[in-house]
Amino acid sequence: VAARGTHHPDVRRLRTWLRDAAARRDAGVVVLEGPRLLDAALARGASVRSVYVGVDARAEARSAVEAAVARGIAYEELASGVAGRVADVRTTSGVLAVAARPRGTTAALDAGDVWLVAACVNDPGNLGTMIRAAEAAGATGIAIGHGSVDPYNPKVVRASAGAIFGIPVVEGDAVAMLEQLARRGVRRLGAAARDGEALDAAPLTEPVALVLGHETRGLGPLPLDGVVTIPMAGNAESLNVAMAATVLLFETARRRAVVAP
Amino acid sequence: VAARGTHHPDVRRLRTWLRDAAARRDAGVVVLEGPRLLDAALARGASVRSVYVGVDARAEARSAVEAAVARGIAYEELASGVAGRVADVRTTSGVLAVAARPRGTTAALDAGDVWLVAACVNDPGNLGTMIRAAEAAGATGIAIGHGSVDPYNPKVVRASAGAIFGIPVVEGDAVAMLEQLARRGVRRLGAAARDGEALDAAPLTEPVALVLGHETRGLGPLPLDGVVTIPMAGNAESLNVAMAATVLLFETARRRAVVAP
Repeated sequence: VAARGTHHPDVRRLRTWLRDAAARRDAGVVVLEGPRLLDAALARGASVRSVYVGVDARAEARSAVEAAVARGIAYEELASGVAGRVADVRTTSGVLAVAARPRGTTAALDAGDVWLVAACVNDPGNLGTMIRAAEAAGATGIAIGHGSVDPYNPKVVRASAGAIFGIPVVEGDAVAMLEQLARRGVRRLGAAARDGEALDAAPLTEPVALVLGHETRGLGPLPLDGVVTIPMAGNAESLNVAMAATVLLFETARRRAVVAP
Repeated sequence: VAARGTHHPDVRRLRTWLRDAAARRDAGVVVLEGPRLLDAALARGASVRSVYVGVDARAEARSAVEAAVARGIAYEELASGVAGRVADVRTTSGVLAVAARPRGTTAALDAGDVWLVAACVNDPGNLGTMIRAAEAAGATGIAIGHGSVDPYNPKVVRASAGAIFGIPVVEGDAVAMLEQLARRGVRRLGAAARDGEALDAAPLTEPVALVLGHETRGLGPLPLDGVVTIPMAGNAESLNVAMAATVLLFETARRRAVVAP
């Protein structure tokens, strides 16, 4: 089989799916760039449909390709230079893969003790980091409000380091999702840069939703049971939303581990 | 005075200082992009030498310009489109400023109870986030090992959100800086993704240096007094170096606040 060129239908589809959120939603896919992301997805049991490797990237891609082939995943070669022109990342590794989009639905909100709620996060790096932190801290999942960046945007996927396949990622209306969590008694704690309850006093050992608002507009009129503030040194502006989420998630994990038998 | 065009010496210098680490070091300057970064620098007492505003950005830049003028800082206009061609950021706001580079020297390591040590951090976003987190958590300062990205790289400066002007930023040989800290009894705790002491048991209330290694190669042969590991949930890969530093810095701040009178 000849290596696929720029005009091959597979290559056109990869390009489209990397750039067009509606097209990748309709197709139910996520595109992964790079062998490390492919490894991370496979390690989390992602359903990878196909792997594409540039002919000039065979060497670096060997272990990723072996892992794919061992799982019976089809792989195809891309002609020289094609991966670089298709990919979203400037310095591409020559490895691209298509995975099925995880099927998170808001029904997942009816279980679990620690939810991260990203009510409106626009920056892909921040959202990806939040998903990565939620997984690493052992949170149940992340609920992402409409108006946020698409969690299957290639920059989000990359910043998540594969964590989009490791925990439930749920999208919906932020207010409706918060109301759903409240119906089963989950405490909804918003994070604010100032004037909230001190983090040390916050009830983090009971079922909790940690709610992060818009990067600059803050929490707005979301339905909450309380607001917490991370203590900060004099001169500092607030942390960015991803840093704040990371601190809150790991403090929650720490407090819950202290309480656990 | 006419607005400066692309070939004006000031504009050529801005371009050079944004792109060339050696040139900005020789000149002892940092270039700030955007009104928010300028505000953050002024709020921290940065010595801003000049402010440049695109003629098409007068409206958004008004408060930044007023703040500069109130401090007697010279400001010049840039002809239409010039700021965009000069700046490092893709969507520039049309505001650029030149500030004196903070004069951190390794002598600063002889005081203070909480140092962050970035032994070898290559990613500008990660290093900037680490500086921002160190300031927000009330750390004494950050020590940056040779081989790391230049802390006055525009991407680092942007990710630091002005914190490079808020705490001492010291550059030097990582091993020599760690030995200097040890001479006055500062405990050097490396951060590792696995097999370290549990964070809860780490001695964080005594004078401490939190040491983060290379993004992929880890701590290597650095002189350390101990290694700590942030407890993480099953499936997760390690956090990135900036997230790990954020968790360690805020846990240190929390523990020291609990102990404080």
